[in-house]
Amino acid sequence: MGQDDGPEFKKLGMCGTGSMGGMMSLLYAEHALDGDNVKKLEQEAIDTGLDKHIHAQKDYQEMCHSLKSGQDPKLFVFSIPHGGAGDAVLKDLRPHLERGDIILDCSNEYWKFTERRQRELEPHGIHYIGCGVSGGYQSARHGPSLSPGGNAEVLKKVIPFLQRVAAKDKQGRACTTPIGPRGSGHYVKMIHNGIEQGMMSAIAEVWFIMNKCLHMKYEEIADVFESWNKDGPLRDNFLVSIGADISRTKKDDGTFVLSEVLDKVVQDADGSEGTGIWTNEEAIRLHVPTPTITTAHLFRCASADAASRLAVNKTFGGGVAGPSSIELRSSLPAFIEDLKLALYAALLCSFIQGMHVLKKMDRQEDWHLNYRKILQIWRGGCIIQSDHISDVLDSVHTREDHDGENLLANGEIAEELTKSLPSLKKVVLKSVEVDTYVPSLSATLEYCKYSSSTMLPTQFMEAELDYFGEHNYETWDEGPGKPVKGPHHFEWKRATGLVDEKKGQ
Amino acid sequence: MGQDDGPEFKKLGMCGTGSMGGMMSLLYAEHALDGDNVKKLEQEAIDTGLDKHIHAQKDYQEMCHSLKSGQDPKLFVFSIPHGGAGDAVLKDLRPHLERGDIILDCSNEYWKFTERRQRELEPHGIHYIGCGVSGGYQSARHGPSLSPGGNAEVLKKVIPFLQRVAAKDKQGRACTTPIGPRGSGHYVKMIHNGIEQGMMSAIAEVWFIMNKCLHMKYEEIADVFESWNKDGPLRDNFLVSIGADISRTKKDDGTFVLSEVLDKVVQDADGSEGTGIWTNEEAIRLHVPTPTITTAHLFRCASADAASRLAVNKTFGGGVAGPSSIELRSSLPAFIEDLKLALYAALLCSFIQGMHVLKKMDRQEDWHLNYRKILQIWRGGCIIQSDHISDVLDSVHTREDHDGENLLANGEIAEELTKSLPSLKKVVLKSVEVDTYVPSLSATLEYCKYSSSTMLPTQFMEAELDYFGEHNYETWDEGPGKPVKGPHHFEWKRATGLVDEKKGQ
Repeated sequence: MGQDDGPEFKKLGMCGTGSMGGMMSLLYAEHALDGDNVKKLEQEAIDTGLDKHIHAQKDYQEMCHSLKSGQDPKLFVFSIPHGGAGDAVLKDLRPHLERGDIILDCSNEYWKFTERRQRELEPHGIHYIGCGVSGGYQSARHGPSLSPGGNAEVLKKVIPFLQRVAAKDKQGRACTTPIGPRGSGHYVKMIHNGIEQGMMSAIAEVWFIMNKCLHMKYEEIADVFESWNKDGPLRDNFLVSIGADISRTKKDDGTFVLSEVLDKVVQDADGSEGTGIWTNEEAIRLHVPTPTITTAHLFRCASADAASRLAVNKTFGGGVAGPSSIELRSSLPAFIEDLKLALYAALLCSFIQGMHVLKKMDRQEDWHLNYRKILQIWRGGCIIQSDHISDVLDSVHTREDHDGENLLANGEIAEELTKSLPSLKKVVLKSVEVDTYVPSLSATLEYCKYSSSTMLPTQFMEAELDYFGEHNYETWDEGPGKPVKGPHHFEWKRATGLVDEKKGQ
Repeated sequence: MGQDDGPEFKKLGMCGTGSMGGMMSLLYAEHALDGDNVKKLEQEAIDTGLDKHIHAQKDYQEMCHSLKSGQDPKLFVFSIPHGGAGDAVLKDLRPHLERGDIILDCSNEYWKFTERRQRELEPHGIHYIGCGVSGGYQSARHGPSLSPGGNAEVLKKVIPFLQRVAAKDKQGRACTTPIGPRGSGHYVKMIHNGIEQGMMSAIAEVWFIMNKCLHMKYEEIADVFESWNKDGPLRDNFLVSIGADISRTKKDDGTFVLSEVLDKVVQDADGSEGTGIWTNEEAIRLHVPTPTITTAHLFRCASADAASRLAVNKTFGGGVAGPSSIELRSSLPAFIEDLKLALYAALLCSFIQGMHVLKKMDRQEDWHLNYRKILQIWRGGCIIQSDHISDVLDSVHTREDHDGENLLANGEIAEELTKSLPSLKKVVLKSVEVDTYVPSLSATLEYCKYSSSTMLPTQFMEAELDYFGEHNYETWDEGPGKPVKGPHHFEWKRATGLVDEKKGQ
């Protein structure tokens, strides 16, 4: 490889050959690696079926033997299901690991597990890098977005290799960067996937409006997605772009593939996904409002049990109503423009909410993340790629005086949202009117409204909490102040005489 | 006490004299306890200020000495902040605990901590009962709703005492029952508080509409709440009833207390509450859609940082718009009726969503909860008391053939919701139109729509997941089926030739 800042990894051990791992084997074989050995190893990994949790000690011995080359450290790449599967592989591999060896965990591993493994291995000089890989199985083959986190010295060693295999953005920059210490790499990938969930719901809601309420044909919708993806706020947006592909794809018999796809998304409900669940758990744990993402997540979960929905549908006598036609007062192109801006607002808010979780965790963990670099690695090879949104968010972060804690309080973002919100409101109104499903779009609208409001219904909630829970409150004269308990309590229910007992009078 | 099924607890040690613990000391002193000793003990607890985390070894020795009475086990009651505070008290108390002693933890403790303490103490014959206490500080004094969980034999011993101090429902039944094993008692209380968060948001949203968009005076709103609380779907609803009190309460200077209360709710954001966060974490962990509750929770969290909202407001040039007047086509009383039914739908869905989390956990943990008993203990002394809703849910559970997994699939509930949803839709439409805040009401509407739908936008989401993630799908002909991964994958992006590489052709 000829770089000065890292060893050449001529060989690597690939653990896991699922849809991601298999493609990565091919990618890694193409770049930077000693051809014959890896080809052999790759076949070995496929034969041993590690991804099916079948792994014999003998295979690891052979794998490690074949990797051994003088004093060079061995490099192992994991691409296996999160949780117990990774622990099992690591347990079997452990006896063959030596000081200096590096495990590059390219699975969607839970960041807490990554950190646990780092704590266990680092004292023995074995390095564990939690490396997020985004882009799906196709990018895994042709160049994904890579977010490695762990020991800084080790990151320096692997980055040159990762730069070669990573996707490149439009300016030719590799979509990888040393994210930060400990589990930060897997955490950033988790946030990426959380943002993805919010985005996918909004796009699906908009697709449904076009198809069911505006009665547009799949290919007409494809044209719309394609035009949105060309320029403007949805420029170079991966999920919009594949939305166009999907809307055109036909089977050999001439029917659309999309038309046969059932409306159930199961990978959160069955636990195989992980990242969406963790992002939402993190948002709740860190008290970060993420309604676009969370509503999308709960919607997916509800969709999974289609049989249960059918049972409710029957009991409800055919459901609440089901979507009907939107009667447009304006022209169709004008409403399509509203749909575009509504979608944009929801996608931008998904990014903002996800980044708010990340920023809170960063402050808590002292990771010192570089947000401009993170935005850059999301510009190629990954699912949430949205070049216009990255431009806006990058612009915010170029200013030294930007509000990093609340992205909404930055002028660049305020401008984008205030331009889009009238359209979002129109779309939500029309959608509620005709009974179509807009969980994420409507949650986004409420989020933008209440996050920018200085007078909320929570005034009444706070009074109720003080009434029954002696919660205390601040007054308008004292506010807004910090998010801490207020100084006033009122004995609202004087009639009971409780105030006297309480104060010992 | 003269019951056959349990010892008389003549004395108890009270640890914690915050707003709940202090009131419980007085309550327990009134019932079932040997007057002089407890009065002395109570004063002692207040003097030592245990609730302020100041606790000297000497106090516990004295407390334990004063509690000791022959061979009878000692009974300690905890009412302390969740988490580390409980662990600290327990650590200091531990040397004085003997086989047979009982700790009744009446704090809002995290169920996982409760179970950890049970695992640590039970092998030594020391019993730890996690007992949810609901009703706020006023009920803590006059009779709360109590949900004890733990060792079945020990529950038998404490239930007679708890029955005496618990609130009574309208039929005179004590609002307590042995909930189940391990942490189930605290878990039920946690769910209670989650339901409470959804309910409080919906009520606050409706209050705000009446006050800001219909320009009703506080006392007019009080009249409305009072009439709602008298009969119909919001009959004997605690939060509606105190809403009327709050809307009438004036300070000595004749101004309304409510008018000075700032709109920030901080107890989730500062971590002091716990239960709301845990309920939402549990919903996410167990994949249960709880949008009414979760949206309410995130709304509260967003309200906490009022200074940040002000900053966004300025950047947005005065916020999104802020609420304006609702122009009614129908009469005001007709719209007030819509508000009532909209609120009812949101309260009922809060119950349903909370119970769905509880039921999923129950199945997972084999707690074998008695839902009719749980509904009964929520009929008195507690914050979520909603007698009409309890009637509906109780009726569902009297049928042996009811669908316990999905309450929405039961006729009684379908009937209530299909009656209310047209009003909920009207209210959401009007609210979105005039830019008022309806996070929970709109989330409830979306929840009811998508939970009863057999054709969702998730069709498109599923296609996107298969496109980039090889997620697989089921077809409409095969569905609805179980929530498991489908059998079909399509290579949507054939152009790349990737399909050939992948299949090794």
